Amino acid sequence: MRVGILGGGQLARMLALAAYPLGIRTLCIDPNPDACAQPVAPVITAEFSDEKALSRFLKEVDVVTYETENIPIDCARYVANSHHLAPSVETLRIAQDRWQEKTFFQSLQIPTPPFAAITREAELSKAAQDLGLPAVLKTTRMGYDGKGQMLVKNPIDLSQAWSRFKDFSLILEGFIPFEYEVSLISVRNPAGEIRFYPLVRNLHIEGILRSSEAPLIHPTLQEQAQTYARRILENLNYVGVLAIEFFYHQQQLIANEMAPRVHNSGHWTIEGAQTSQFENHLRAIFDLPLGSTAATGHAFMLNCIGSMPPIQSCLRIPGVHYHAYGKQPRPHRKLGHITLIESKPDNYLKNKQLIIDNSNSR
Amino acid sequence: MRVGILGGGQLARMLALAAYPLGIRTLCIDPNPDACAQPVAPVITAEFSDEKALSRFLKEVDVVTYETENIPIDCARYVANSHHLAPSVETLRIAQDRWQEKTFFQSLQIPTPPFAAITREAELSKAAQDLGLPAVLKTTRMGYDGKGQMLVKNPIDLSQAWSRFKDFSLILEGFIPFEYEVSLISVRNPAGEIRFYPLVRNLHIEGILRSSEAPLIHPTLQEQAQTYARRILENLNYVGVLAIEFFYHQQQLIANEMAPRVHNSGHWTIEGAQTSQFENHLRAIFDLPLGSTAATGHAFMLNCIGSMPPIQSCLRIPGVHYHAYGKQPRPHRKLGHITLIESKPDNYLKNKQLIIDNSNSR
Repeated sequence: MRVGILGGGQLARMLALAAYPLGIRTLCIDPNPDACAQPVAPVITAEFSDEKALSRFLKEVDVVTYETENIPIDCARYVANSHHLAPSVETLRIAQDRWQEKTFFQSLQIPTPPFAAITREAELSKAAQDLGLPAVLKTTRMGYDGKGQMLVKNPIDLSQAWSRFKDFSLILEGFIPFEYEVSLISVRNPAGEIRFYPLVRNLHIEGILRSSEAPLIHPTLQEQAQTYARRILENLNYVGVLAIEFFYHQQQLIANEMAPRVHNSGHWTIEGAQTSQFENHLRAIFDLPLGSTAATGHAFMLNCIGSMPPIQSCLRIPGVHYHAYGKQPRPHRKLGHITLIESKPDNYLKNKQLIIDNSNSR
Repeated sequence: MRVGILGGGQLARMLALAAYPLGIRTLCIDPNPDACAQPVAPVITAEFSDEKALSRFLKEVDVVTYETENIPIDCARYVANSHHLAPSVETLRIAQDRWQEKTFFQSLQIPTPPFAAITREAELSKAAQDLGLPAVLKTTRMGYDGKGQMLVKNPIDLSQAWSRFKDFSLILEGFIPFEYEVSLISVRNPAGEIRFYPLVRNLHIEGILRSSEAPLIHPTLQEQAQTYARRILENLNYVGVLAIEFFYHQQQLIANEMAPRVHNSGHWTIEGAQTSQFENHLRAIFDLPLGSTAATGHAFMLNCIGSMPPIQSCLRIPGVHYHAYGKQPRPHRKLGHITLIESKPDNYLKNKQLIIDNSNSR
């Protein structure tokens, strides 16, 4: 058994680490010659549009998945012609376009912020009036980690936002003054078996996920999120891990976006759940029974952005698990993450603080 | 940081899987061109006596360890000339010779079965009289998984045993009619920090470890085993993971052998302990703080010998973790292992039985 992964970044790297024990080998394809999956999984360096490289890649693998939704849809179609691609082309098509995605959520009665497609400057003014300000102007495609978006607080910002983004396909979204952000990681296999991880509470800073805590124990919200996720999974006949990010506002979950892949807010599951999101994604796409998603303790996951915290002091903190991605440091770059697993509330709070202090100490 | 591993089998493979998250890359050297670490870690195919290959290997790595004690001592010395080799050459020298090992145990007041070195047939008869029968005739070197040994039940067996093994350096050991076998996995770093995993109860069939269960909760035995282990670790100024196998007989632990490396009876720690033996071995040899060795539940580890059990039915059992080593099936060959982690005693017993049944069903 061999899985082909479109993309060779840290998600591919962690998928590979989960694959080997299942007897699954890996092969990635990525245009970046420094793709960090490299020492763990072989990587073909090629553009996703390079059909020669793609067919070389496809010859070696049984099932194909992707670690990013920024895969050209033509590449996905090419793969799906000859191979089982999971999640599907249709899922990818929806997930890589914010307008498609929100329209899809609406069609399933999943609440979203109010939104409007923008193609001309006049539409932007009109939409700003309809939705009210503040609002967020976003490119519909290729946005991640806060890129390709701008908060519009007052009418004067509108023309600035327009001139910055006018060459892109755009969407204006009403700003939700949310209390906090949560995500739900779910997984479905071809047999229709579905598992949900406990809800995760996330903290973003400057559009980048900074930390996650799980489980967020809130039975009503859990139920609500699962209901929405189930609609998506079943509607798309989904196979693999799906992450949905929600705003929590006035006791309601409002869907922000979905990611048809393993997700940063699920990294805590490596040690914090009985089966990690990476293993369950592989189990799903290889049509194997899914593993338990139950939490094994309380987890705090801190992203390491721009630099790794000192490993010596980090490993001295009880319950800490260190995950370096083997990437060159660069500002705003995700270089690794640290997970704390602890069951006792006092120790959890104390050690969480030690991790934060240690990460700021460099 | 890069670790060099002498040997490229499943222990190297699992060390590599634990190394990447710590930001440690790996390189193995192994004479077997099919060494199963291969897809996970690069492997130089060469004899351990090939100094050219060894120096190529050493140029690439910072610290060196081994996954088997069957490394020629000259190879270990060559490595230690230029690199930190952990555990040490002296440790390896003792561990690869049963007579040295038992003599070493005796020098530390650690109980062993009675034993005698055998170099001539006459000595064998004499030793059999002194120690009594049954006894076990063993080659002093290169024995593993029950190879290189023969149970001598009566005087008639003696000459047969002699003619089978007379070309080797030999030891006769009194047979201990043990109640059960246990092992203690411990780890020490250069700072002198020591951690002990909970005791493991092991079942061997035909000399090959068949299954392990942990933790064996028995404070007196745990204390006794730790006292013995501490003597060894401190006497050798030991760095890395050390496994000691004991017979449990008449409420005493009798040391059978030690392995200066990660050990099959510690595989349950991958999911069953807060830090796996593989990660703690790497932490130790890279002079990092050690991680908690506390058990996270009750663990049952079943070796897959000769063939892998069907993965579909296996993964259907709750709490099961599947570990394939990517090796070609062959009789008596360890191809993988399966670990059950479960905290509730009823479920533990039920699911353990399911694993055994599933493994016999093929």
